[in-house]
Amino acid sequence: MRIGVVGGGQLARMLAMAAYPLGMQVTVLDASSDASAGQVADLVHGDFSDRKALGRLADASDVVTFDFENVPAASADWLAARVPVRPGARALEMSQDRIAEKELFTRLGIPTPRFAPVDGTADLEAAISVTGLPAVLKTRRLGYDGKGQRVVRDMSSAMEAVEQLGSGLVLESFVDFERELSIIAVRGMGGEVAFYPMVENLHRDGILRHSSAPATATAHAQDARDAVERLLVELDYVGVFTLELFETTDGLLANEFAPRVHNSGHWTIEGAVTSQFENHLRAVAGLPLGSTAPRGASVMVNFIGSMPDADKVLSLPGAHLHDYGKRPRPGRKLGHATLNAPAAEELDPVLARLITIARG
Amino acid sequence: MRIGVVGGGQLARMLAMAAYPLGMQVTVLDASSDASAGQVADLVHGDFSDRKALGRLADASDVVTFDFENVPAASADWLAARVPVRPGARALEMSQDRIAEKELFTRLGIPTPRFAPVDGTADLEAAISVTGLPAVLKTRRLGYDGKGQRVVRDMSSAMEAVEQLGSGLVLESFVDFERELSIIAVRGMGGEVAFYPMVENLHRDGILRHSSAPATATAHAQDARDAVERLLVELDYVGVFTLELFETTDGLLANEFAPRVHNSGHWTIEGAVTSQFENHLRAVAGLPLGSTAPRGASVMVNFIGSMPDADKVLSLPGAHLHDYGKRPRPGRKLGHATLNAPAAEELDPVLARLITIARG
Repeated sequence: MRIGVVGGGQLARMLAMAAYPLGMQVTVLDASSDASAGQVADLVHGDFSDRKALGRLADASDVVTFDFENVPAASADWLAARVPVRPGARALEMSQDRIAEKELFTRLGIPTPRFAPVDGTADLEAAISVTGLPAVLKTRRLGYDGKGQRVVRDMSSAMEAVEQLGSGLVLESFVDFERELSIIAVRGMGGEVAFYPMVENLHRDGILRHSSAPATATAHAQDARDAVERLLVELDYVGVFTLELFETTDGLLANEFAPRVHNSGHWTIEGAVTSQFENHLRAVAGLPLGSTAPRGASVMVNFIGSMPDADKVLSLPGAHLHDYGKRPRPGRKLGHATLNAPAAEELDPVLARLITIARG
Repeated sequence: MRIGVVGGGQLARMLAMAAYPLGMQVTVLDASSDASAGQVADLVHGDFSDRKALGRLADASDVVTFDFENVPAASADWLAARVPVRPGARALEMSQDRIAEKELFTRLGIPTPRFAPVDGTADLEAAISVTGLPAVLKTRRLGYDGKGQRVVRDMSSAMEAVEQLGSGLVLESFVDFERELSIIAVRGMGGEVAFYPMVENLHRDGILRHSSAPATATAHAQDARDAVERLLVELDYVGVFTLELFETTDGLLANEFAPRVHNSGHWTIEGAVTSQFENHLRAVAGLPLGSTAPRGASVMVNFIGSMPDADKVLSLPGAHLHDYGKRPRPGRKLGHATLNAPAAEELDPVLARLITIARG
């Protein structure tokens, strides 16, 4: 089977590496000629609205999927008229607009922070009356890795944030969370769903730094699975799906979803029976899903801005290095390492050393 | 680091897949334009004695290794004059000639079946007086997967076998073994050695069918490790090394060694902390070796001549499919599947189903 991927970053690269053992071929579409996935898969060079490039991707693919959700809806629709596209355009569209996403959560009875649209300073007073303060002002579209977000504590910082971010914004209640969790699920062509164990995530400057899996027990795991199940059915979803959550003393609040494999699931390569990448491919190819059971305990550390010495990482017991082959740039995700051990207690001393190495 | 591989079969393909996460690039040299590894790595198309092709491989590589031991010694030497070649030409040469190999075993005090050279029917009587009957007549060079072997039970079948196989033969005592074992080791640039647990192998028609790891307890594991250690030091070896053994009621007998990653080590991809492919790359690149500890119990089944339905294989619990992307041909290794579970007892019922699926 020939798999096409819109986007050629590290997610597409890891999809390709999971595809080859299954006997699949992979073509990726990316605007960068040295895209991470282009080093290990066929690359169609072009941007996501370039019809000629989209046509070449469609011609090279039996099914098309995504490593990036911010693909123009018109491109997804254009592809879908030519080749099966999984997940479908609707899941992409919902995930592109924070307000549509939160309205969907609300409609499905999934608790989410209070929110209100903001298109200029004139809307601020009404919005703050909904969210309270402090709050977080975000761009409705195209935000990722903490880009396009400002915490606002009073009206004057809110005015300033609106001036910086422009229009097309959403104000959200600031959540005083206990911890950040994510849950990754996969839904097959026949509607069957499997869940990976919940993951505990640590962000800094809006970028994911560490993920630990399985997360230590939460009283709310079933709530998270129920929420995902409702979203998957509503979106008629096929493939891997990720929901990011805040755990608070009052329960879980849904933050956002990603209609794709996710950074907080990289640990599944070594830490689960079937990786998120393989399960996404199995799903979109109509194959049986693989077990999502964890194998021991894992923690993943992202390498941001610069790669550590491979030598140092590989000297750590149970360490697995993933270098994405990307050019260093401040704030850019260049690779990760996963530590795996039979039990979580064994990870802590090694994690401390890995974090030191990751900092250079 | 840029890795060159002489040979572009499934071993090179799996080496490439282990290389990318380490941030390495891979170029393979193969005489076939649709070589298995050429689908996932850069391919230099040419035969193993084509100096122009060897030169292109050397130019594209910081270190060169092999997925096939029957490379002309002159080619290995020619490469070694231009780029580091690991393991070295001597290990290749020894493994190419069954008599040199057995003389090496004998010199190092490693028990091996009795043997004698046979260059024509005139040598048979003397050879049989050394080996006894039954015995196995083999070509000294270029035998693999049972090719170039005949069991002989009396003088007349021995005469016939010599006429079929020609000259440059070796007669070996037939070993009435309890089981076939292999042990895979990796030796780093600094001389450090790590051993995978022993593997129990089942051959049919001279082709490996199943490998189970870890093998159930053998009283002779330390003998096997000692034998490998002596060979590694003698050959000044770097990389993964495999020794195939017969277990008899009198102890172990060395059958042959392979100076490379090995079919009986494919289970390490899912069944060991670090796969044989990653550890070979770590060794030849001068990086620290990874843990060779097993993760649960594994059994690998080869797909010979035809590939089963992916659907059926992937519906088995704990099954991992590896399709080499090769054209079907009778007797050809096209792929494998590894079953992995926390304990060996859980594998048996699934193995029975996998074997049925593999038979088509």
